[in-house]
Formats: sequence, C-alpha cells, structure tokens
Amino acid sequence: MQWYIVALLLTVLTSSQGILTTLSQSNGRYDYDYATVPFLAEVFKLFVSSLFLWKESQKSPPPKMTTDWRTVRLYPIPSIIYLIHNNVQFATLTYVDTSTYQIMGNLKIVTTGILFRLFLRRKLSNLQWMAIVLLAVGTTTSQVKGCGEASCESLLSAPIQGYMLGILSACLSALAGIYTEFLMKKNNDSLYWQNVQLYTFGAIFNMARLVADDFRGGFEKGPWWQRLLNGYSVTTWMVVINLGSTGLLVSWLMKYADNIVKVYSTSMAMLLTTILSVYLFNFKPTLQLFLGIIVCMMSLHMYFAPPQMLVDLPPPVVKSQDLESLIEVPSDRRTDS
Amino acid sequence: MQWYIVALLLTVLTSSQGILTTLSQSNGRYDYDYATVPFLAEVFKLFVSSLFLWKESQKSPPPKMTTDWRTVRLYPIPSIIYLIHNNVQFATLTYVDTSTYQIMGNLKIVTTGILFRLFLRRKLSNLQWMAIVLLAVGTTTSQVKGCGEASCESLLSAPIQGYMLGILSACLSALAGIYTEFLMKKNNDSLYWQNVQLYTFGAIFNMARLVADDFRGGFEKGPWWQRLLNGYSVTTWMVVINLGSTGLLVSWLMKYADNIVKVYSTSMAMLLTTILSVYLFNFKPTLQLFLGIIVCMMSLHMYFAPPQMLVDLPPPVVKSQDLESLIEVPSDRRTDS
Repeated sequence: MQWYIVALLLTVLTSSQGILTTLSQSNGRYDYDYATVPFLAEVFKLFVSSLFLWKESQKSPPPKMTTDWRTVRLYPIPSIIYLIHNNVQFATLTYVDTSTYQIMGNLKIVTTGILFRLFLRRKLSNLQWMAIVLLAVGTTTSQVKGCGEASCESLLSAPIQGYMLGILSACLSALAGIYTEFLMKKNNDSLYWQNVQLYTFGAIFNMARLVADDFRGGFEKGPWWQRLLNGYSVTTWMVVINLGSTGLLVSWLMKYADNIVKVYSTSMAMLLTTILSVYLFNFKPTLQLFLGIIVCMMSLHMYFAPPQMLVDLPPPVVKSQDLESLIEVPSDRRTDS
Repeated sequence: MQWYIVALLLTVLTSSQGILTTLSQSNGRYDYDYATVPFLAEVFKLFVSSLFLWKESQKSPPPKMTTDWRTVRLYPIPSIIYLIHNNVQFATLTYVDTSTYQIMGNLKIVTTGILFRLFLRRKLSNLQWMAIVLLAVGTTTSQVKGCGEASCESLLSAPIQGYMLGILSACLSALAGIYTEFLMKKNNDSLYWQNVQLYTFGAIFNMARLVADDFRGGFEKGPWWQRLLNGYSVTTWMVVINLGSTGLLVSWLMKYADNIVKVYSTSMAMLLTTILSVYLFNFKPTLQLFLGIIVCMMSLHMYFAPPQMLVDLPPPVVKSQDLESLIEVPSDRRTDS
C-alpha cells in the first residue's frame, strides 16, 4: 500500500473521530464513561493485530518475531510517555483554558520536527523546516478566535507555568511519536507482532487508569468492568472502532512512513473537521480559518513536492543547457503555473 | 547601489509614513487639507529629480533623454490609472467599511504577481508563486480583528458589488505599478529624465484634484493656492518630504529592481508600522499579528533565497557526486539548519 493512501485514510478517520465524538453526546454530555473508549480501542487494536499475526503465521515464511526480553521491554515505553503526558496535560489545564491549550497543542508539530532531527537523525531541507513551521502557524491561525467569541482575552495572559507545561506537553507528545517510530523501525519484525506488544501494554495501562479512577471515586459506581458498556450506543461503538482504526493506521505509518507524515495527516484532519463542522454543526467560518487552510496547503506542497517542481532548476552558476539534459525535469513543470 | 538597500530604505520610509501621518493629526483630526500632501510630494519629487538631471547634464556623457512625443505621451498613463483607482476606491468604500477594504487591499500582492507574469512576461518559479500567495495571506492574517475589537461582523457580509470593486481596485493598483515598471525599463533613458516626465504629470493631476475639490466645495474656503499651507506644522512637512522620498525610491526600484521587490518592501513596512504602533500608540498586539509576521518572513525567504539554499540539491535523478562539483553549494548551506 502507498503511504499517501494510508495518510489520507488517517486524515478521514481522525476527522470523523471528532465528528463521531460530538455525535455520541446527548445534550452536550456523555452518557457513557469516556475513559472506557481508549481502553476498548486498545483491545480492538490488539484483537485485529492478533488476527493478522495469526493469519501471517499460517503462511510461509512465518512472520519475523523478536521475543528477546531486551526488545519486548521497550514496548511499554510509549504507554509510559503517554501516561506522563496525560498528567502534564491535566496540570497544564489548571493554568490555562482549553482554547489556549488547543492553540499551544500546535507546538507539537514543531517539536516533532526537532525530535525527528535529533533522535532519529533524519535530515530535512531548509524548505521542509519552513514547511513544518508554516503547518504549525497555519493550524494555529485557523484556531484564532473570531470577534464574537467569548474567552478571547485569556490568551497570552495565563501564568508562565501554564506555558512551560504547554511546551513540556508538546515535547512529550512528540517524544511518544518519535519513540514509537524508533521502535517500529528498530528491526524488521512483523508489524503485527510489534502491534501486539504495543497494544498489550496499551490495554494494560488503560485498564490501570480505569482502576485508578475507581479508587479515586471510592468505587461509588462499582468496579469498572461492571459498568464498562453502560450508556454505550451504536455511535459510541463507532467512536471505539474509529479510534482503534486510526491507531492501526498510525502504527503502519510509523513503520513504513514517518512522524512528519502523521503530523500532516492529523493537522489536515483538524482542518477537515472544522470545515465539516460548518455544515454539520452550523459552525460559523472565520476569515482566519480560510487563511489557515491556505497556509497549511502551501506547507503540504512545500514539504512533499519534489524540489525540481518547486524551484527552477538548474541553479544560475551552471549553464542551463548543460544541466537541463541531466536533470530531466518534465517540461510542463519547469515553468511557473 | 544595491537593490536590497533601496528596498530596506523604502520599508523604513513607508513605515514612518504611517507613523508620521498619525503624529501630524491633533486630537485625531487633520488641521491641514490632506489632499495638498500628495500634490506637494509630487512637486518635491519633481524638484529633486530636476536637480539630479541638471547635475547629470553637466557631466559627460550627458544623460540619455528621449523627447519623442510617442514616448512622452506614455508618462501621464500611471497618473490616469491612479486617478481611476482613487475613484474606484471611493466607490468601494460606499459598500464596505475601511477594515474590510484594508483586508481586500492585500489582494494587490497577488494581482501584482499575475500582471507581472502576464504583461511583463517575467517567469516565477512555483515556489515564488507560493511565496507571493503566502505574503498576501500573512499580511491579511496580521490584520484579522482581535476579539475585543468592534465592527468585526461586517467582514464577508458586505454586498457583492463591494467585493467586485475591491478586486477591481486591486487590479488597478497593480496595473499602475506594472505599467510604471514597463515605462522605466522601456528604454535606457536617464532615471531622472523619466522621473521629471512622470512627476510633471503627477503634479498636474494632483493639482487638477485640488481644483476639482474647490469646485465641489463651491470655493467656500477660497481657491486651493490661497490655503495650500494652512495648518502646516513641521510634522506635516515631514509627511510631505517622506512621501516624496518613498516615491523616488519606488521609481528607482521600478527601473533597477521590480514590482515584486516593491510589494515585499511595502508589505514589510505595514508589519513594521503595526509593531511600532505597539510601542508608540499602545496598540495591543494580537496572536494573529505574530502569526502573520512569521508567514511573511517565511515568504520573504522563499522568494529571495537562492534555490540551492532552500532545497537539498542535487535532485535524486542525478548521481550526487557528479552534480556537487558543478553546483558549488557552500557546504554549510547544503544540510539543514
């Protein structure tokens, strides 16, 4: 499968995740315990991956599986980072409001680029760096509050701790992604075997969260397994399946593409959700949404288009006819549009 | 003189034009007739250009001057376009408010690029087209109204005629610039001789406007020459000299650089004015100002940086060592930042 088809699918599913979650509410509230959704999504992913792994093991050659403890022990790390991230996120929200938190969330795009360079040692051209910054600027622009909206004064007026925690949150979120990519590409184990390890720990950590919630609530509503599916509707199940599916696509991208592709997919999904909200939820489109979309589209083109398509090669230091024969740029692309 | 020094000077002077004009008001009103400012600026430019032309004519070889009527008759055309533009601008403002008009003014950046391509037949790379669009998006972003500001509902709610006239206005404004560039580069006449012709017609057209204003006002305040300098302060004179100087710099750029350079200069000046207003007039900076500045800076870099600096040459179809010797990219620039 081509990476851009997977990326496109991820965009559509991530976007429908937001829409489905909104649709699963009744009168603006959840009838079910939202914390059960990521747990069931992990179980779904574990089930699907196990099934594929089993099918793969029937064929020859059998799937490559490293069961060495020194490798397996690395698989809980993404879950641990996400756990820390959730707590930092919670702490951040005691200092800043949700819209400021959402704006700061775009920092993740830039921190992902930086960690991608530092930890995975992947080189990006100057233009690609600019594209990453523009993607963050574009998504932020689209989220700038319109004139009529409330709570607009709060931005840039939160205590400094809020911003520090917001930056930390962006770094942790990027780190989890980068670490997962490192893990998936570390060896050429079967993707499904890697997934099974990843999601086993994912399910355990999410279950631990449900248990912790029970202890925090003093078991007033009974243990989590007794009320696991309370209030679940068809839409709630769709939220679970959708979340699980996006997770599977992300795993695929981590192994066969990279974090930057994932960041573009989810950013485009955010814009798509906003556009769909205009039609579905009578969300009023703003000028800044339109401007943000243009910036993100330019960024996408800058990052992924082949350089020969973007700039007029050959560079001026070389005689044009010498290079033209070498580079073989399609003639319809060499001139401007 | 290098074009980027002239462009930088133009940015500084254009920016101070806004600041000086604000400072020349007392209690938010003009004590003088603002229509006299462009007239006196034309006279100032005519005087300076004549002086330089006279100095040039003392030297050998004497300045090249085409006095053929078929060439001279082209010089009133920019003034005529500006006259039409002023009237369209006036008509536009009967349909849309000033902040919507200001936002639409950024369209001029894109129309200049298009006319630059169509009329002057100058080729731009894909990346440069993207840079031009991003410049327009960036300046627009910086002007998006903050939450607390009034009259924000009006945007995108004006009658369709307002937007059509706004587009026409952007086209006329671009056309005047493109035509001037065509005129200045048409032959290798002395810049000062070209200026003398341009500003003579400029002064005549501005004088005609003052006369027309007198007729419209029924000569109630007396003829324009009797009240020309009424209410002039030192700051007003600075506004005149500053406006005249920016005009001279624009002429230079039209002959030795191009319209795109001018567009970048004036866009950067707009941002600089906004930044200075934060300090001088306690203007409250918004998140969108910050985002707009980043987009414009990226655009500037995309448009003017040498392509080899932006993308990782050599392209994949050629063996790297073959091209590396040819292209001579400085080694510190080839890798990412």
